[in-house]
Amino acid sequence: MSKVAVVITDMFEDSEYTQPAEAFKKAGHELVHVGLKSGATVKGKKQGTPVKVEKTAEEVKVSDFDALLIPGGYSPDKLRVNEHVVKFVKDFVDSGKPVFSICHAPQLLINAQVLKGRKITGWKSLVQDIKNAGAQFIDQEVVEDGNLISSRSPADLPAFIRACSRKLTST
Amino acid sequence: MSKVAVVITDMFEDSEYTQPAEAFKKAGHELVHVGLKSGATVKGKKQGTPVKVEKTAEEVKVSDFDALLIPGGYSPDKLRVNEHVVKFVKDFVDSGKPVFSICHAPQLLINAQVLKGRKITGWKSLVQDIKNAGAQFIDQEVVEDGNLISSRSPADLPAFIRACSRKLTST
Repeated sequence: MSKVAVVITDMFEDSEYTQPAEAFKKAGHELVHVGLKSGATVKGKKQGTPVKVEKTAEEVKVSDFDALLIPGGYSPDKLRVNEHVVKFVKDFVDSGKPVFSICHAPQLLINAQVLKGRKITGWKSLVQDIKNAGAQFIDQEVVEDGNLISSRSPADLPAFIRACSRKLTST
Repeated sequence: MSKVAVVITDMFEDSEYTQPAEAFKKAGHELVHVGLKSGATVKGKKQGTPVKVEKTAEEVKVSDFDALLIPGGYSPDKLRVNEHVVKFVKDFVDSGKPVFSICHAPQLLINAQVLKGRKITGWKSLVQDIKNAGAQFIDQEVVEDGNLISSRSPADLPAFIRACSRKLTST
C-alpha cells in the first residue's frame, strides 16, 4: 500500500480532498496532511470540511512518501507563497513519483517551475497561466503525462480517482 | 470629473474596493460596477460588503469610461473565465486610459495578454505568473508604468489611492 502526502490549507475545494481521500483510504493507502502549521485544523471553502495538518513542508521529504495529492480551491494559491511547500512539490515532481493535480492545483506546479514541456489540464481560469508556464493545456477530464495526473474540476472526480488509484496500485 | 468602471464579482477583497471607491466618490468621480450579471448583488470575501452590479461587460465599452479599477481577492480569478470581461480589460489597457490593479487583479491582465514588457506589482502568490506573462514584477507599494498603476495588497491602499487619484485628476 502507498503513503500519500496531501498538501492542503484553508479554502480547499472540499470534494477534491474528501472524495480522493476516501477512495485512497478504502483501498488501504495512508494519507499524511502537509500544510503551513503542524496541528492546525484547516477548512474547506464550501462545506467547511475540517482537516488536521500533521506536518509542515519543512518537516517532510519526498522519500517519506509514494505519491502527492494537491486538491484545488484557493488552497494552492495560499500554499504557493510558502517556499518550503513549493520546494516539496518541485522535489516530488522531479522525483518521478506520482503527482495528482486537480482544479487550481497547477498554481503550485507553476511556482515549482516544473511544467515546461508537460501536458496538463486544470481549472479553466488557469489556461493562460499554464500555457505561459510552458505547458500544453489539454481540455479533457483526465490528462496523464508521465508521473503527472491532472483533472479540471469536481465534475471530473470519478475519472480522476480511477486514474490516480490505478497509478497508486502500479507504483 | 471622471467616470470609473469597476470590474467586480463575488469574493472581492472588501477594502480594495471600498477604500478606493470612497476616495473616488468623495473627489466627485462616478463609479459604474461591471460584472457577470446586471442587477446582481456581489459580496466581499471578508466582510461580505454588498456591491450592486450595474452592467455586464457585454453592455459596456471603453469609450463609456475614463478609467478602470480592478479590486483583488478571488474576484479576478472568477471574472477571467468570462471572455467579455477579459476583452473589456484588454481594450481598456490598449486604449491608454488609466487602469488601476491591486492584489490578484493581474490575473485578469494576464488573461487579457497585455503584460508583455510592462512593469507591474501584485499579490506575492502571482510573482511567477506575472513573470511568465512577460512582465517585470517590482516589489514595491505602487508601480506606475504608463497607464498602468498597481499595488500589492490592502497594506498598500493609502499609496495606491493617492497614485490613482492623482492620475484621475490629470486625465
